[in-house]
Amino acid sequence: MSKLKNAVIGQSGGPTTVINASLAGAVSRFFEIGEGATIYGAVNGIKGILREEFLDLNSIFSNEDNIDLLMQTPSSYLGSCRYKLKTDSDEELKQIINTFVKKDVGYFFYIGGNDSMDTVMRLSSMCEENGIKAIGIPKTIDNDLPGTDHCPGFGSCAKYIATSISEMALDAGCYDIKNVLIVEIMGRNAGWLTASSALARNEKNSAPDLIYLPEKPFDEERFLYDIRQKLLTRDTVIIAVSEGIKYANGKCVAEDSQSSAVDMFGHGQLGGVGKKLELLVKKRLGIKVRSVELNIPQRCAAHNASMTDITEAFNCGAAAVDAAFDGENGKMIVMKRTDKKRYDVIYTTSDINSIANNEKIVPDEFISSNGNDITEEFIKYAAPLIQGERKIKFDNGIPAYIKR
Amino acid sequence: MSKLKNAVIGQSGGPTTVINASLAGAVSRFFEIGEGATIYGAVNGIKGILREEFLDLNSIFSNEDNIDLLMQTPSSYLGSCRYKLKTDSDEELKQIINTFVKKDVGYFFYIGGNDSMDTVMRLSSMCEENGIKAIGIPKTIDNDLPGTDHCPGFGSCAKYIATSISEMALDAGCYDIKNVLIVEIMGRNAGWLTASSALARNEKNSAPDLIYLPEKPFDEERFLYDIRQKLLTRDTVIIAVSEGIKYANGKCVAEDSQSSAVDMFGHGQLGGVGKKLELLVKKRLGIKVRSVELNIPQRCAAHNASMTDITEAFNCGAAAVDAAFDGENGKMIVMKRTDKKRYDVIYTTSDINSIANNEKIVPDEFISSNGNDITEEFIKYAAPLIQGERKIKFDNGIPAYIKR
Repeated sequence: MSKLKNAVIGQSGGPTTVINASLAGAVSRFFEIGEGATIYGAVNGIKGILREEFLDLNSIFSNEDNIDLLMQTPSSYLGSCRYKLKTDSDEELKQIINTFVKKDVGYFFYIGGNDSMDTVMRLSSMCEENGIKAIGIPKTIDNDLPGTDHCPGFGSCAKYIATSISEMALDAGCYDIKNVLIVEIMGRNAGWLTASSALARNEKNSAPDLIYLPEKPFDEERFLYDIRQKLLTRDTVIIAVSEGIKYANGKCVAEDSQSSAVDMFGHGQLGGVGKKLELLVKKRLGIKVRSVELNIPQRCAAHNASMTDITEAFNCGAAAVDAAFDGENGKMIVMKRTDKKRYDVIYTTSDINSIANNEKIVPDEFISSNGNDITEEFIKYAAPLIQGERKIKFDNGIPAYIKR
Repeated sequence: MSKLKNAVIGQSGGPTTVINASLAGAVSRFFEIGEGATIYGAVNGIKGILREEFLDLNSIFSNEDNIDLLMQTPSSYLGSCRYKLKTDSDEELKQIINTFVKKDVGYFFYIGGNDSMDTVMRLSSMCEENGIKAIGIPKTIDNDLPGTDHCPGFGSCAKYIATSISEMALDAGCYDIKNVLIVEIMGRNAGWLTASSALARNEKNSAPDLIYLPEKPFDEERFLYDIRQKLLTRDTVIIAVSEGIKYANGKCVAEDSQSSAVDMFGHGQLGGVGKKLELLVKKRLGIKVRSVELNIPQRCAAHNASMTDITEAFNCGAAAVDAAFDGENGKMIVMKRTDKKRYDVIYTTSDINSIANNEKIVPDEFISSNGNDITEEFIKYAAPLIQGERKIKFDNGIPAYIKR
């Protein structure tokens, strides 16, 4: 039995709670069908390949307990980067291919978002000439990669946001006084995460009462009117707002806040969009108001990850190995729903040229006509993605996470 | 068999994740030994008593599923208040007692912190004259009530903080660049919660690398020096800082920030202490820096509550009923450790006069001599309080919470 080629896998871009589950999926599948070949982990993504800094994942993850911990550990076990390959020459591409050839690497897997898929795309033609298969594995909390029904990383972030909104609604509603809570959620151009706040709603909970996405122009007077209307029928108004909302002139609401605010050093950037809107509401409505920026916890709260998301992230990693072994190159793994009635997905591939550097924003049919809420169609789309909970292993009161 | 007197229970002050577990404990115990008498829930605490707005808890919680949901629901099921009884006359006290007599109430339970214990204290002498037993049940995330080893509400908040710090440390450390993350944690005068961030540490994780409590004067130059020192040996420095840290002159660091910052409306209050220190580090160290305010989620993240805390909160509620039935009045339930080696507590009572309006701050032996960390003694004290996880019931992807 001839020994198969080795593999290299890297993680790139902003971390999510399940990028490591995709790593676990690829590693596990490679162990199954790689006939003992080595899968190398590139430390800090493409930067690690350029520096020839690799981990021997066969030795680390032959211990199945480590794979299990990896499945529940947020952020990038291998380390990440935001490095874009130079476009003015192909020296870096050649260097990478030379390293692959030297290490007898026949497969390259890169887990990441839009920018990372650009790396896979640029490498894939030179890979083709050398018989190397390059496959992208989707990852982003923002859910903005085209060509796939949704992205691993989104469901867990959405679950954390919906959970937090439901908890903060109880907190904010505990006094019998009129008050407004503004929750700032990640997503600069695509409002998928902010929209997912609506998954907090049920028979007992109307929060969030208002939702503003970056896809629709933001108008301050309309915003204040919306709040006044809601306050007519309830004491507490919870508002989900994307960090990326923009005025009709295209200017970011947050940018405007930052340029106008001056701190003690003459610096801007004191507050984001939530803080700006908090001040607006306080000044104009004279009501108790607070803002909360969900911030980093929303993308790393693995203790509350979606089991659906973890499983799909794992499967995307495994599917990448299968695709490469089937001879595919320059592709990204995508998920497609198979059934209109019961939620289920299949894993297939899509040409990476159509994906890299493109963004998928929330379509009109998911946004209410007056632009301050989402539609029932969005709920149908997103609800299956936050279902299920992993039985998290704890160690001395906190989740047990693996670190290299 | 003569019917026993009825009871009134209320919740007061800022919400926690387990104030409802104490309600569940008191209600359950009253059902057991109250011989069918009614336990009324005062809506929005003492304000509900003054307005004679009560819920019949016998009818709501005869359904055991509701008790079970109550055990995992954050914030105040009954509604809360921040109302202090008027001190210039005893009209309100008389009105409350009259309502109690009218409703044949012999027992009053009030779950709350320092201010709420003041209410119990002021009511207790007039209760005494009328044969009514008033008992306080401790509650505060701040852990600042004297007379008890610790307070229900603290352990769950501490667990959430330690969990979040461990997750954010993985997130912040994913790139190979020097960076600082400042995490702002609740606690204006007492640093118990900020100290508990240290429970995130283990063999693989040093974060938080620096900890600043309000108990020790804060010095900006020393702070910058501390960061520089840590950066010598690691890329990522995670800092836990209390919202209440003060300069040696007693001025709050956050206040100073707010008065110096001017937003587009000429308002202050743009940023808290985390944001202020972020700007300081950026200006002086020229390094990538981010700040995160854990904000409201830290006190309502019931999905990650400590089972030890939930259990103790329940037991404190039950112990209050027992104490009242034993004829005690003007007392608060306190917990005492029984064993130096193995963690265990007993529930007893303490005179409420020694508790009301007093604050217990972090003692010197729990703070490192250079004031930028905590000691191993603190870890020994706090670690048992975050142990254990409840199997949370989820409904459609988010935790199932009960709402009145």
